[in-house]
Amino acid sequence: MANEKKVQQNTILDIAEALKLSPATISRALNNHPHVKEKTKSDVLKMAAQLGYRRNNMASGLRSNKTYTVGLIVPRISMFFHAEVITTIQNGLHKYGYNLIICQSNDSVTMEKELTEILFSSRVDALIAACTLFTTDFSHFDKLLENGTPVYFYDRVPLHDLGATIIKGDDFRGGYMATSHLIETGCRKIAHISGPLTSNLYQNRSSGFIKAMEQHQIPVNEDWIFHQELTQNNAREAMRKLFEGDIVPDGIFTDNDSSAIAALEYAKEIGLNVPVDLKIVGYSNDPRTSIINPSITTVEQFPADFGKKIVEVLIDSLKNPNHEITKTAPIIIPIQLIRRMST
Amino acid sequence: MANEKKVQQNTILDIAEALKLSPATISRALNNHPHVKEKTKSDVLKMAAQLGYRRNNMASGLRSNKTYTVGLIVPRISMFFHAEVITTIQNGLHKYGYNLIICQSNDSVTMEKELTEILFSSRVDALIAACTLFTTDFSHFDKLLENGTPVYFYDRVPLHDLGATIIKGDDFRGGYMATSHLIETGCRKIAHISGPLTSNLYQNRSSGFIKAMEQHQIPVNEDWIFHQELTQNNAREAMRKLFEGDIVPDGIFTDNDSSAIAALEYAKEIGLNVPVDLKIVGYSNDPRTSIINPSITTVEQFPADFGKKIVEVLIDSLKNPNHEITKTAPIIIPIQLIRRMST
Repeated sequence: MANEKKVQQNTILDIAEALKLSPATISRALNNHPHVKEKTKSDVLKMAAQLGYRRNNMASGLRSNKTYTVGLIVPRISMFFHAEVITTIQNGLHKYGYNLIICQSNDSVTMEKELTEILFSSRVDALIAACTLFTTDFSHFDKLLENGTPVYFYDRVPLHDLGATIIKGDDFRGGYMATSHLIETGCRKIAHISGPLTSNLYQNRSSGFIKAMEQHQIPVNEDWIFHQELTQNNAREAMRKLFEGDIVPDGIFTDNDSSAIAALEYAKEIGLNVPVDLKIVGYSNDPRTSIINPSITTVEQFPADFGKKIVEVLIDSLKNPNHEITKTAPIIIPIQLIRRMST
Repeated sequence: MANEKKVQQNTILDIAEALKLSPATISRALNNHPHVKEKTKSDVLKMAAQLGYRRNNMASGLRSNKTYTVGLIVPRISMFFHAEVITTIQNGLHKYGYNLIICQSNDSVTMEKELTEILFSSRVDALIAACTLFTTDFSHFDKLLENGTPVYFYDRVPLHDLGATIIKGDDFRGGYMATSHLIETGCRKIAHISGPLTSNLYQNRSSGFIKAMEQHQIPVNEDWIFHQELTQNNAREAMRKLFEGDIVPDGIFTDNDSSAIAALEYAKEIGLNVPVDLKIVGYSNDPRTSIINPSITTVEQFPADFGKKIVEVLIDSLKNPNHEITKTAPIIIPIQLIRRMST
């Protein structure tokens, strides 16, 4: 049975290769799609006969009308991390004849719901999503899962089990390592600029921060933990509050690099010497962190590893469409601290 | 007639607003789409009756089955300029009830063709595209134009008239101003790191470069003009060639900012003082150019203005679906030189 499916899969790709057409076009031609030219349909049928292609409707089951299209919903394509994940996914999928459609939620829950609906109606073969920071109800993804369409969440993942595959970074360890590094380089008064607690990312990075502080018996000042959208303006506002008090921090851990850059610029403006007076650690290894002066210590998340892993599990599942969508344990992508001049 | 259409347009949006559903869902419900729940269909029909909605099939013509989805094909989402254009377009379209599907060609002509096919099959109401650097045959877009689906090219546009709307930057003037600025700040030996001449962008920026040189009666050294993919590696390779000769440049104009950053880093590595020994001007005002030391003079392209203009002409056309797709003169978005420490 597994062999039979493999033969069918390879043969569609073989027809595509022989005719220098995309697998999506071959699939549409075989399904007599109205948008495919008659000449193409006839070429495809001839080549299919020549290569001994045989449809296996039983094996392909619900998804006999494969579109060879995968949908992806991302909060913001402008974020370096997501752009890198997406490009790796797209290049990986293309080797297997799949195209990728990208949608941007702009961190709006309403938009995420609408886009899920659109991708469902476009009959994508699979959906990949990094949720908005504010998604707490994930029921808009149910329709796909119930329909047998596999769903993969990465980075920003549901807070409870939906039966989808989860690929996430080691955010707890990232928060722990960043904070431990500040402590080891001499900081004792450490502030944390974090994101909204509705997101798994900031829950976990914050837990890592607190764990490191407790382990080194350094008191956590609740007023010095900011949970807000991680914009440059919000980071400047947090810095203003932190440095108007009598006691000021000597270390800051920010949950993204835009905030770290804003914090560094604010510190320079008020005459602080980074790293002597204040040490800063960011998160994500955005390209800007290595060219700013001083360069910023940050946590590398390896977006290309996210992308490769997603392609691996997705192709594995699409090649075996009759497998039940199985609950797998979350896949964790390791992180690494990149030490630079800001600490 | 125009009023009648306007009423219909507003009413679909009114039903959407009243039921807190997307216009796409309303449209699907009215078209009895199998993916819409029966309950939703019944709600929509009731509200449609209540608001006096009346289908105007004659007016809606070919596009009676509007999907309220616009497709976009972009070379690389990771480029700051494109990410900014896309986000502006998405936010603008959303106000009118349209969603945006984004596809990335990775500068591959084959992928651009496949993605055009996929968006055509998804029955997008309009297509927006910035072409690959190597697209010289644009016939894959014909199918949409022939079908009455409006196509908008921006930034990287066809070299000949396809009957589509063109929105592009003032690349000639950008190249001219960047080069004139180098000359006015004292440079006499100027090199140009440019992109492939298959693209309108680099044809025009190069023409601007040559025009400024000629106007100031400065000889153009053909060996100092590089037409190649604008990667950081290629820029370093160009710098190596330029600085291994007996006569070396005192000014460099690069057609993107990644190349300017690579050129600056290379110059610092070989011990040059920028701007004293060498002046550098980039293109695009990538955020990295303002934080690197020294900050880099560059050409601002105003991506948000591109996005707003595209939404304006697109919505204008979609609101009047019976208008012939008219050839309009190319829309030119002005540029501005941002002077910084590298000159």
